[in-house]
Amino acid sequence: MTTIDTRARQAVKAMATLTYKPGKPIKDVQRRYKLSSVIKLASNENALGPSPKAVAALRKTTGQLHRYPDAACAELKAKLAKRLKVNASQIAVGNGSDELLVLALRAFVEPGDEVVVAEPTFLIYALQARASGAKVMRVPLNNLRYDLPLMRAVVSKHTKLVFIANPDNPTGSYVTKRELEEFLRGLPEQVVVVVDEAYYEFVDAKDYPQTVSYVNRAPVIVTRSFSKAYGLAGLRIGYCIARPSLIAALEAVREPFNVNRLAQDAAVAALDDRAFLERTRRMIRQGRAYLGLELAQLGLRVVPSVANFLLVELGPKASQAAQALLRRGVIVREMSAWKLDGFVRVTIGTMPENRRFIQALKEVVG
Amino acid sequence: MTTIDTRARQAVKAMATLTYKPGKPIKDVQRRYKLSSVIKLASNENALGPSPKAVAALRKTTGQLHRYPDAACAELKAKLAKRLKVNASQIAVGNGSDELLVLALRAFVEPGDEVVVAEPTFLIYALQARASGAKVMRVPLNNLRYDLPLMRAVVSKHTKLVFIANPDNPTGSYVTKRELEEFLRGLPEQVVVVVDEAYYEFVDAKDYPQTVSYVNRAPVIVTRSFSKAYGLAGLRIGYCIARPSLIAALEAVREPFNVNRLAQDAAVAALDDRAFLERTRRMIRQGRAYLGLELAQLGLRVVPSVANFLLVELGPKASQAAQALLRRGVIVREMSAWKLDGFVRVTIGTMPENRRFIQALKEVVG
Repeated sequence: MTTIDTRARQAVKAMATLTYKPGKPIKDVQRRYKLSSVIKLASNENALGPSPKAVAALRKTTGQLHRYPDAACAELKAKLAKRLKVNASQIAVGNGSDELLVLALRAFVEPGDEVVVAEPTFLIYALQARASGAKVMRVPLNNLRYDLPLMRAVVSKHTKLVFIANPDNPTGSYVTKRELEEFLRGLPEQVVVVVDEAYYEFVDAKDYPQTVSYVNRAPVIVTRSFSKAYGLAGLRIGYCIARPSLIAALEAVREPFNVNRLAQDAAVAALDDRAFLERTRRMIRQGRAYLGLELAQLGLRVVPSVANFLLVELGPKASQAAQALLRRGVIVREMSAWKLDGFVRVTIGTMPENRRFIQALKEVVG
Repeated sequence: MTTIDTRARQAVKAMATLTYKPGKPIKDVQRRYKLSSVIKLASNENALGPSPKAVAALRKTTGQLHRYPDAACAELKAKLAKRLKVNASQIAVGNGSDELLVLALRAFVEPGDEVVVAEPTFLIYALQARASGAKVMRVPLNNLRYDLPLMRAVVSKHTKLVFIANPDNPTGSYVTKRELEEFLRGLPEQVVVVVDEAYYEFVDAKDYPQTVSYVNRAPVIVTRSFSKAYGLAGLRIGYCIARPSLIAALEAVREPFNVNRLAQDAAVAALDDRAFLERTRRMIRQGRAYLGLELAQLGLRVVPSVANFLLVELGPKASQAAQALLRRGVIVREMSAWKLDGFVRVTIGTMPENRRFIQALKEVVG
């Protein structure tokens, strides 16, 4: 790791040791362990591949790649607005929903302002808040769930932004309608709440809040993704919904051509691919039940999940177990970067992938 | 335009009236003026389309779009490093070179720091510097060229970043090796200089500096683009070269999956498409000569350009002339947003496009 230049901002220089480590690519594991077949259950990707309608759409437009993308994402916004029953002025589109999180920090947070995050949770919140020079207030999970009453108690007159992942990653747990409403009630005037719903499409729970319905009443920004349910992680596209004045703040800091042309075309087509979305949801529901049962039979603790992945406790040897799974061609995510020692996160795959994971796990922990 | 939320940062709220207006899309002009054939010479895109090798490469990988892109852009960096004779640790890759400009601001500039830019020049420098809360020091062009001695005089102990477009957009003029070297000599310790070479591949001038050769001696970040010469504007991919410690600062603020998968694959393939690059350069050279001659015969002032566009003075009626060209199916860029009243910017197209522009212009100004 190269030392960060002395010319960098103080907050950036302090980041030297912090880097995000993505899931291991299939190719690397094949090469390293000389395996012909490797399955990746490490990055919560869609095991069914990308939406076929999306792929068909972008094959048509590859000849136009010399043209800049639509800076306004007008077609996608119009379609989302209709679908979500909001106005197009209530939507912003990002280079993945990751970018929208950064735009929120750039729009609302001055160096020294406080940003409230859970710990652990999606790592990008704290990483990017630190990069912005914010004071990051970390609120521990309670029994691997967001502790909203405690997060609410930490909100002060210096708080500008709160990040809530719902469902949460990497636990797969969720915040209920009642918990969220209590959190939002009487929030100080200057606070903006980002609710990250990257896994929204997988949730079946009845007490899961329809957060989009709050955006006109509360300073809430709801972010969503095409990476997971629609299988478009490689293209980078996400969106958010909020009141128009909050969207205008995000738009003021956004680069005009932040969303590439193919991602826009693919997302428009993916929204029509209801059959693919249903197949995906069915796969996740079935895989969640199967894996829950098998893991319970192995005597392993599994955090109840409403998302497309499971957080599984393997105990003190979790790290070695993940290595042993790698050698068997199964990539899962070690949780040490999240300080969740003893756990691994497993993305729900196709049934053959799930079975192969369970088989390999039995060899490893048996 | 919606009012920006009161919760936004002071610098962001002050931006309400500033928005970047892209070139008009072909479809909109077709619809508006009921035209079957429209040519767009407004956004400095490559009239030959995208690199065919790039398109072929990405058609192969559309099936893998459910996978996250390589967060490290390892293959592209390795290829660029070899080509440019630098180390991979001296390269960062962005969602277009636009993003690299923003990363430089986020890495080096605190609110209140000074950022030096020319006026007019590429609009994103000042827009994004303002969004960062920087104090933007605007240095007028001298005879439509960067006035580096004056910019150097404006650099103070509060200056953190200087943006130099070379070649410049929208003038097409360039800064010479001697001018740049004088500017860099004895620069205060804390200053970082971003040299934006988005149009690098089009330059033939002998006294144009090979700025990459300075990166080990001076705190210079050289940004380049695949949007122009390689025809990949729609995919969003650019890169920069600098000393490893400056790259490390950019990496610290970068989102891990900022560059989409198709853009990475296409860029790798485009670097091998030397035939396409040569065809593009030839087209620009020929078009530049042809348009220069024709415009001179019309008695119009043309700024000497080393890029793939020309800044043309049409006089007080430039705005109406641009409108009249639109009705004839020719989109050029009005320059009022740059405060260059009386000018239009014309992208050099294919020879049939160039001829159609000249024909339409004759009807309009004749």
